[in-house]
Amino acid sequence: MKTKSVKAALVQHSHKGSQDENLAHASTAIAQAADSGADLVVLQELFAHAYFCQTEDPAQFDLAGTLNPGKPGPILQSLSELARQHGIVLVASLFEKRAPGLYHNTAVVFEKDGSIAGRYRKMHIPDDPGFYEKFYFTEGDLGFKPVHTSVGTLGVLVCWDQWFPEAARLMTLAGADMLIYPTAIGWDPAENEQENSRQLDAWLTVQRGHAIANGIPVLACNRWGFEPSPDGHTSGTRFWGNSFIVGPQGEWLARASTDQDEVLTAMIDKQRTEHVRRIWPFLRDRRIDAYDGLLRRFLDE
Amino acid sequence: MKTKSVKAALVQHSHKGSQDENLAHASTAIAQAADSGADLVVLQELFAHAYFCQTEDPAQFDLAGTLNPGKPGPILQSLSELARQHGIVLVASLFEKRAPGLYHNTAVVFEKDGSIAGRYRKMHIPDDPGFYEKFYFTEGDLGFKPVHTSVGTLGVLVCWDQWFPEAARLMTLAGADMLIYPTAIGWDPAENEQENSRQLDAWLTVQRGHAIANGIPVLACNRWGFEPSPDGHTSGTRFWGNSFIVGPQGEWLARASTDQDEVLTAMIDKQRTEHVRRIWPFLRDRRIDAYDGLLRRFLDE
Repeated sequence: MKTKSVKAALVQHSHKGSQDENLAHASTAIAQAADSGADLVVLQELFAHAYFCQTEDPAQFDLAGTLNPGKPGPILQSLSELARQHGIVLVASLFEKRAPGLYHNTAVVFEKDGSIAGRYRKMHIPDDPGFYEKFYFTEGDLGFKPVHTSVGTLGVLVCWDQWFPEAARLMTLAGADMLIYPTAIGWDPAENEQENSRQLDAWLTVQRGHAIANGIPVLACNRWGFEPSPDGHTSGTRFWGNSFIVGPQGEWLARASTDQDEVLTAMIDKQRTEHVRRIWPFLRDRRIDAYDGLLRRFLDE
Repeated sequence: MKTKSVKAALVQHSHKGSQDENLAHASTAIAQAADSGADLVVLQELFAHAYFCQTEDPAQFDLAGTLNPGKPGPILQSLSELARQHGIVLVASLFEKRAPGLYHNTAVVFEKDGSIAGRYRKMHIPDDPGFYEKFYFTEGDLGFKPVHTSVGTLGVLVCWDQWFPEAARLMTLAGADMLIYPTAIGWDPAENEQENSRQLDAWLTVQRGHAIANGIPVLACNRWGFEPSPDGHTSGTRFWGNSFIVGPQGEWLARASTDQDEVLTAMIDKQRTEHVRRIWPFLRDRRIDAYDGLLRRFLDE
């Protein structure tokens, strides 16, 4: 049975030093979220690890685990147990080993009974200095399919996806009730403050834009804290926190700090989406007869 | 020859009472813009008229004119002369009569010599209380094709298009250097202030989102001022001004007031677009193999 409103919680934290410590932190934060009445808890991207994509290091593949429900690894088992124990829907971003030499950046959605409701493999993979994800992750091949859960149909996307209006639109067209972005984004400490301010504002704005263009709430859960470059070839990354929840007009419901562990909560009222889509019926007027060019790389030929 | 930077001017004004008065105002404002060094001047949507779509009134079709360069009507002739006289590229939104019973909401782009560089027929047509545009305008059939001019390749779109990320993306993929939205949007005076504030913020945010997602400057030119409903069946519309220019990270370059005639100017530096698209290479990573759903109305079948 679907509920009319959902209390959502985003778990924003710094890297705690090890997988065990990150899992322990998540466990405490999930308990806190559930105690406050949350039905839905979202963890940040690759929450169990340092953001290991700052270098291209084959040894980091040791961090990945298979996400086969029949043979669950320790992280999968712990998360399933946390979802069941607290009776929450849980969105967790994990490093998936699919086969030798084949890895994905995958979000797993657990139902309140601890079962796996579905998963999403990150479709758009970044690669820029300090974010060498194309070395680690194969592009997702599950498409833009939302996950059906007891708290609604969740349009789970991951980090770099947040810059692509196509991803948000496709999840909306596939019936998502909300968009959820586990993410890991931050500043280059060597960059100037004006550029840093523009980048954070752009990150908030483009995602609020997806909310508005689709009449859909958006939840983004980011890590915070400085993580040094393992090999010193960059200045490291200062992850900027600012996890947030906005409603279907892009209106602010909750926003976290730049530099604190937080369990950020907000009520998401599904009736608001219905209301907003009636007054702003964008889906009615899409010119699908004239959108062919969207399937091309560039319209230069 | 294409310039490296362009000084753009947006002419924001209230309805002056008649076509002649609106044209006189535009003429003065264009001269002012040119005197300040503008290369590119943008007029607001249907600048020559009251926003006549507040009711469905067949008599309003008298306002439309043919946009045939071989047989230019008085508005087209005046605008062409203004562009030539001041040596500016001019974007003007007009009510086009294409044939008896066939009308469009069309933007015409004039080159510095007064010739017509190209035009765009509004592709997404709104229809909601007080904005009965589906009665007046047939959907555009020229597609999302930017106009090549001496100041750059202009991705001209009109008003309701601004809510559709597809339109912004297609203009970008077709090589636009900037997106330009003549528009006419405002508040329902009977609505509460919280909703009005959300609506204005959403309008600014979704367009800044297009700038960010595409790494492209965005210029939006809106009217201001209260215009009563001609037949009193609504509370009329308080057009909200707030014309603006943002850069390719959605950063503010200029923003107009809610309640003043203004000639809003900003320098648009094309090197910024090059820089931003290098650090945020979104066009590199689009999953065109997985976007087929964008050509469908909804993914329910």
